[in-house]
Amino acid sequence: MTDTLRNLASTIKARRSANPETSYVAQLNHRGLDKILSKVGEEATEVILAAKGSLDSPDQKAALVGEMADLWFHCLVLLERAEIDYNDVLQELERREGTSGIEEKRARAPENH
Amino acid sequence: MTDTLRNLASTIKARRSANPETSYVAQLNHRGLDKILSKVGEEATEVILAAKGSLDSPDQKAALVGEMADLWFHCLVLLERAEIDYNDVLQELERREGTSGIEEKRARAPENH
Amino acid sequence: MTDTLRNLASTIKARRSANPETSYVAQLNHRGLDKILSKVGEEATEVILAAKGSLDSPDQKAALVGEMADLWFHCLVLLERAEIDYNDVLQELERREGTSGIEEKRARAPENH
Amino acid sequence: MTDTLRNLASTIKARRSANPETSYVAQLNHRGLDKILSKVGEEATEVILAAKGSLDSPDQKAALVGEMADLWFHCLVLLERAEIDYNDVLQELERREGTSGIEEKRARAPENH
Repeated sequence: MTDTLRNLASTIKARRSANPETSYVAQLNHRGLDKILSKVGEEATEVILAAKGSLDSPDQKAALVGEMADLWFHCLVLLERAEIDYNDVLQELERREGTSGIEEKRARAPENH
Repeated sequence: MTDTLRNLASTIKARRSANPETSYVAQLNHRGLDKILSKVGEEATEVILAAKGSLDSPDQKAALVGEMADLWFHCLVLLERAEIDYNDVLQELERREGTSGIEEKRARAPENH
Repeated sequence: MTDTLRNLASTIKARRSANPETSYVAQLNHRGLDKILSKVGEEATEVILAAKGSLDSPDQKAALVGEMADLWFHCLVLLERAEIDYNDVLQELERREGTSGIEEKRARAPENH
Repeated sequence: MTDTLRNLASTIKARRSANPETSYVAQLNHRGLDKILSKVGEEATEVILAAKGSLDSPDQKAALVGEMADLWFHCLVLLERAEIDYNDVLQELERREGTSGIEEKRARAPENH
């Protein structure tokens, strides 16, 4: 499982310059940054809608897993487009892990709170 | 790096029942599912805004890394709240990796396209 | 201009039970509340993306006008679905207008700030 | 009711250069376009969350009215910031009203569908 993100990131990198008619990643990149960002916003909305469905049912949990996978996938496409290694994001999360509780929150997004 | 998500998920699980006055994760859970979902929506917007800034500058790239870390963090808080193992999301991504290109897109979100 | 929202709201109401194959409003309602909400989220993202484009150019301003119209349209479809008169929203805005400045902000969304 | 949007738009215009310590509109403008856009995304999420609550209860309907008012308010702040008259948005909606059903949908957002 540990290599899923690595494999997926490298697949996305390889597909970026593939044929837009046969590769979804190439198609997204061909349509441009705004299309990728539009998908990130759309998938975040789908995650929210799936989570608001009753999480008591197994079907609903499966739906949330699927929408979260969609969101993470498009996040990786965005990082690749921006030439940012997804490991930089993991490292940032690790850096914050050192801090904790409310302090961690301040470290994370000082201006929002 | 491979254990970042695992460590973070287990920290989030442990903090869920901590004191809301000292733990941000406990505070989010105390305020309820809607608060967590509201943060997911908010952070997705921040990712989009950071990415629309000029990605030519190192500052802007660092901003996008930070906002993406925020988004992933709140996704993990949501998964924990919904009692979904983040590995289920990675497994779903792996399952799709087998497929490719446009077919993969259909497998991902048939009803949207 | 004053009657645009009224006319549009009544058109949307009339179309709700039309044939989904020929009416977009009927189609949205046929697909359900989640589909309408998904469009609200999607159009909000489009507004943000259009606004982040350079607002110096006339083309970009026209794009923002178009996306804002999309957003408001889907808001009206949602209100009709929820059986809420759009005038209730205008009345709420008027009520707040009485208050002002920072106080108005508190009246608007006390828990977020 | 017909003059609510006009009154509100002119209040927002007047407040833009007010003291950020006493006016919320001035404060938003002082913090910049991204802050305004961030609020638009946030309020759209709140609308979705309120609508997903049970719309059977009067409380929930009141919540949706309040969140929709928040969203429209921040849309007007954005339009003022972009120096776009809200009447341009109403005119765009009227223009589309002439078309109907599925054709209207195509006129609205050809590339998304």
